[in-house]
Amino acid sequence: MENFSFYSPTCFVFGKDTESQAGELVRRFGGSKVLIHYGGGSVVRSGLLERVKKSLDDASIPYELLGGVKPNPRSSLVYEGIELCRKEKIDFVLAVGGGSVIDSSKAIAAGTVYDGDFWDFYSGKLIEEALPIGTILTIAAAGSEGSPDSVITKEEGMYKRGATGDAIRPKFSILNPALTQTLPAFQSAAGITDIMAHLYERYLTNTKEVEVTDRLIEALLLTMKHEGPRVIADPDNYDARANIMWAGMMAHNNSCGVGRSQDWNSHDIEHELSALYDCAHGAGLAVTMPAVFTYVMEHDVMRFAQVAVRVWGCSMDFAHPEVTAKAGIEAFRSFLISIGMPKNFDELGAKEEDIPKLVETLCRGNGRDGSLHGFVELDESDCTKIYQMMVF
Amino acid sequence: MENFSFYSPTCFVFGKDTESQAGELVRRFGGSKVLIHYGGGSVVRSGLLERVKKSLDDASIPYELLGGVKPNPRSSLVYEGIELCRKEKIDFVLAVGGGSVIDSSKAIAAGTVYDGDFWDFYSGKLIEEALPIGTILTIAAAGSEGSPDSVITKEEGMYKRGATGDAIRPKFSILNPALTQTLPAFQSAAGITDIMAHLYERYLTNTKEVEVTDRLIEALLLTMKHEGPRVIADPDNYDARANIMWAGMMAHNNSCGVGRSQDWNSHDIEHELSALYDCAHGAGLAVTMPAVFTYVMEHDVMRFAQVAVRVWGCSMDFAHPEVTAKAGIEAFRSFLISIGMPKNFDELGAKEEDIPKLVETLCRGNGRDGSLHGFVELDESDCTKIYQMMVF
Repeated sequence: MENFSFYSPTCFVFGKDTESQAGELVRRFGGSKVLIHYGGGSVVRSGLLERVKKSLDDASIPYELLGGVKPNPRSSLVYEGIELCRKEKIDFVLAVGGGSVIDSSKAIAAGTVYDGDFWDFYSGKLIEEALPIGTILTIAAAGSEGSPDSVITKEEGMYKRGATGDAIRPKFSILNPALTQTLPAFQSAAGITDIMAHLYERYLTNTKEVEVTDRLIEALLLTMKHEGPRVIADPDNYDARANIMWAGMMAHNNSCGVGRSQDWNSHDIEHELSALYDCAHGAGLAVTMPAVFTYVMEHDVMRFAQVAVRVWGCSMDFAHPEVTAKAGIEAFRSFLISIGMPKNFDELGAKEEDIPKLVETLCRGNGRDGSLHGFVELDESDCTKIYQMMVF
Repeated sequence: MENFSFYSPTCFVFGKDTESQAGELVRRFGGSKVLIHYGGGSVVRSGLLERVKKSLDDASIPYELLGGVKPNPRSSLVYEGIELCRKEKIDFVLAVGGGSVIDSSKAIAAGTVYDGDFWDFYSGKLIEEALPIGTILTIAAAGSEGSPDSVITKEEGMYKRGATGDAIRPKFSILNPALTQTLPAFQSAAGITDIMAHLYERYLTNTKEVEVTDRLIEALLLTMKHEGPRVIADPDNYDARANIMWAGMMAHNNSCGVGRSQDWNSHDIEHELSALYDCAHGAGLAVTMPAVFTYVMEHDVMRFAQVAVRVWGCSMDFAHPEVTAKAGIEAFRSFLISIGMPKNFDELGAKEEDIPKLVETLCRGNGRDGSLHGFVELDESDCTKIYQMMVF
C-alpha cells in the first residue's frame, strides 16, 4: 500500500425527511447567507425546493436562488453564480439536486473566493479555498456529495474537465433515499452505472498488496449488483434506494480507494461523449467501460479474473484465467444492458465519423499531452481503437 | 435501513515515517500546548517518543509528558491527566500508543473541560465538548483512532465502561503500519481479534435490508481472515500490517455500521473478564464470542449462515441452515485458535467460581438494569450460561 492522507469531514445526515434539517445544518456550519443552487423542474414540482426554503426561513437564514443547472453542467452558469455570490455577499452554497448541481455549486464556491478565472482549477490547479458547501442529494450517482471533486464543461471548445481539493468537500450532505424514488428508470440506471464506474476505476490499480481496498470495492460492487435490479423493477423500494445511496457515497469518498493507484481512463474517454452528445454520463460509461476493459485486460488478467469470480460469480478457469477475466467483463456488460443502459455508439446516439474529433479533444484538448495515464497508458491510436470497439 | 447521522472528521495520515508530521498536524488543528500521553517502555525504547518530541520541537510547540497508561486504562491516571492539563493550560492531547492510551487521552480531553466528575460520561452522559485530540497509533486493534468512543476502568468497583461523543473523535490520526511490526505475536493476534469483534458486533443486527453494510463488514472480515495469519507468520510484513491497520480503522469508525441496530453484548460480557483478570481485551473476546454466538444463534440462523458462507467459505446446507451457521462459528473459533488466541476460561486465566461475581457486575454494576440489550436481550441467567460455556 502507498502512503496516503484521507480527510472526509462531511457530516452525512441520512434518511427520511432529513431535508427539513437544512436550515439548522447551514447554521451549524457557519452559513449566514445562502445561495440555493438547483437544476430545473423536478425539485420545484416535487415541492422539495419549497421545503428547503421553509427550513431556511425557519432558521432565519436569508437566501438567493439560482436554478438552471443542466446535466453536464456548463461554465457560463458558474460565472453567473460567482457574480451573484460576490454581489450578494453569499457565504454558503447549498446544492439541491444531483451531481451536476453539486459540481456546479463547488465551482461557484471555489470561484467566488478566487482572484482569477475559476477555469484554472479545471486545468490542473488545486482548489485550496472555497465557500462552505452543503448538499441535498436527489440522485445516487456521482458521489459528489462526499467527494473533493467537481466536473464542469467549458462551452468554448466543449472541454469537460475535473477539478479537486479538500476545500470543496461538502460540510454536510443530506441523503434522503425517498427523494430518489421519483427518478425515471433510465436515470436510476445511469446513476447505478456511474457508481459502479467509480468502483471499477479504483479497482484497476497497479499497486500490489491492497487486499482491504480490493475487498471494500468488491463489497460495494456486490451491493450494486444486488440492489440495482431491485430499484429498476420497483422504483419505490426505499430500502434498495437507501443501500444504493450509501454505496454511492462510499464508492467515491475514497475510503475504498486510498493507498493505491487508480485508473480513470474510462471516465476521461466517456467525458468526450457526454460533452459532444450531451448524453447521460452513466449511459456513456455503460458503453465505454466494457470496451476499455476488453482492450486493457491483457495488462493484468488476474485482476480481471478476481473481480469476475468475486463479484460476478464466474467459475475460475485455472488453466485459462483470461477466459474467466473475459467472462467477468461480459457479465458486467450484460448487467448494464439488463438495467436498461445502451450498449454501443448507435444506442447512445454517437457517430463513428466523429471518432477522430473525439480522440483529438480527448488526447490533445485543454493542454493534454497526447496520452491518458491510468491503469494502462493509452495514446491516440489506442483511444481510436477503443472508440471503434463501441461501434458494433 | 434506519435514519442516521455519520460524521467522521478525522484526518488520517497513513504510511511510513508519517509520525514526523505530528508537529505540523497539531499546529494545523489548533494546538499550541500539548499533553503527550503514552504508556510504558516500548514507545521509549523504540525511539518513537523522541521522534514525536522532535517533531513538536521543530514546530515550536511546547508539551508536557504523562506516561504510565496500562492496558485496560484506569480512572486514577485520567484524574491525574485532567489536573495536569488544567494546571499547565494544555489545549491539545496527543496520544502515542494503542487503544488504551487513546481512550485515556479521550477521557482526559473530555474531563478537562467538564465541570464535574469525568466518570459521568462513563455512566451514560454524552460527551459534547473536549480538548482536541491527535493520535499516533502503535497497534491495530481498538479502532479508537477513528471512533467517538472510549473505555475506562474505574478502580473503585472495577467497573469497565464506555463513553461516546463526536467531540472525542480525533482531529488527526497518524497510522504508520511499520510501528506495529515490533509487536509480540500475542498482541498482534489480540488486536486482530478485537477488530473482528467490532465487525461481528455490527453484523449481528435486527435491522432488515442492510445489504451495503453487510457487504462492507464481510469485506473487512475477509481482509482480516486473509491478512491475520500473514502477520502472525511474518511480523515484518509491512503490507499485511497496512491492510490490517486500515481495516481496523474502517471497522470502527462506523461507516460499515450506520443505519442498523448493533450488538455489543460480547464486548460487555468480555469487559468483566479483562476488568477482573487484567487479560488482553482481544484474548477475552476470543473466548467470549464463540460462546455468545452459539448461545444466540437460534435468534437468526440465516444471519449466521450468511457470514459462514460469505466469509468462512462454508457450503450452504439448504436443508439444515443451522448446520452451516454452526460451522461458521466453529470456523471462526478455529481461526482465533490458529493465530494463538486462548479458547476457554482456563487458557485465559479466568475461574469458574467467579462466574456469579462476573454476572453480578455485568448485569447490575454501575446502574445497569439486570439485562444486556444487544442482538438478543440477555438476563442474568443467560449470562451465567454463556460464561459457563467458556469452561470446557
